Amino acid sequence: MTSRLSQQIQFILEIDRLKSILRQTHLADGSRLENSAEHSWHLALMALVLAEYAPTEVEPQRAIAMLLLHDLVEIDAGDTFCYDTAGNASKAAREAAAADRIFGLLPAEQGQTWQALWREFEAGTTATAQFANALDRLQPLLLNQQNQGGTWREHGIHEAQVWQRLAPIQAGAPALWPLVEQVVADCRAAGYLTPSS
Amino acid sequence: MTSRLSQQIQFILEIDRLKSILRQTHLADGSRLENSAEHSWHLALMALVLAEYAPTEVEPQRAIAMLLLHDLVEIDAGDTFCYDTAGNASKAAREAAAADRIFGLLPAEQGQTWQALWREFEAGTTATAQFANALDRLQPLLLNQQNQGGTWREHGIHEAQVWQRLAPIQAGAPALWPLVEQVVADCRAAGYLTPSS
Repeated sequence: MTSRLSQQIQFILEIDRLKSILRQTHLADGSRLENSAEHSWHLALMALVLAEYAPTEVEPQRAIAMLLLHDLVEIDAGDTFCYDTAGNASKAAREAAAADRIFGLLPAEQGQTWQALWREFEAGTTATAQFANALDRLQPLLLNQQNQGGTWREHGIHEAQVWQRLAPIQAGAPALWPLVEQVVADCRAAGYLTPSS
Repeated sequence: MTSRLSQQIQFILEIDRLKSILRQTHLADGSRLENSAEHSWHLALMALVLAEYAPTEVEPQRAIAMLLLHDLVEIDAGDTFCYDTAGNASKAAREAAAADRIFGLLPAEQGQTWQALWREFEAGTTATAQFANALDRLQPLLLNQQNQGGTWREHGIHEAQVWQRLAPIQAGAPALWPLVEQVVADCRAAGYLTPSS
């Protein structure tokens, strides 16, 4: 085995730990919390199913690669709940250090390519990153609807906070925005979402 | 929301159930059994990391799509343990019915495309399908090594059975075969694998 392949296998074993990082979102059937590895799988398949709604500048294959690796930094940095203000203040620094270590396990040029893809996702300035980010916001919305409000009700999240969280969908996947508006309206009507006062 | 998008969202919600289908393989840290959704994520990332070892005829992006969807039929058919002879006799029929139902949730032409990709994986006759299959055989080998023989020891699997299971790697990813030989030799030396009598 070459040392290059040995590094790649070490990376493959290391990322197995993402299966043990729990998110705040529940599975659709409410049976348990979702982990970040299966969440990433779900998003990559969503990118395949919903590619036709992506703006024309989006490169779907790059979006899929981005979604597969976007949460790897959580192996070191943990999952930061999107409505946790204090946690989000320190999130960028914790995740940058995690990216250095985890992508640093790969052969140098491969690690740099992957880390650049991760940074592109985080920066959210390209059409591909914005589409990937949109799916990352859409999926928990759908799961929370299945869980009668799930995470929102547990943490007392109000509708205005949810809209703020969903806003990137309008930029990254405008063709999916009517869906978002309908799901939120349905959740409100069903009493899953607390109106902001 | 169009009825087309509504079908696609129903499919996205339905496939969430793959997160509850347990395999026989344990996570690398031995803490629990792996589920088929996170397994599929792991394989898709392996296809990205190891793309350089694929034979030139392989289309890596199609391999990734194939790996993301290859286990969806288990939502209905369950995970059939690879060393379960009786289960494997009925596997093809159970999985074909599952594919009809699950891919049938998608808009017709999209469902047909996806089902064709799944059938290509199952048939294993193209270079892309053979590479995808090779990764599907390699990943449990790596996890079993991390678990001191894990599934092999629990079920009394002998080395000859393991070699039979690994054989498609030689065809689908010959550049990874020396790695396989080394890992099996290491597992044998460590006493993780029972020699065949």
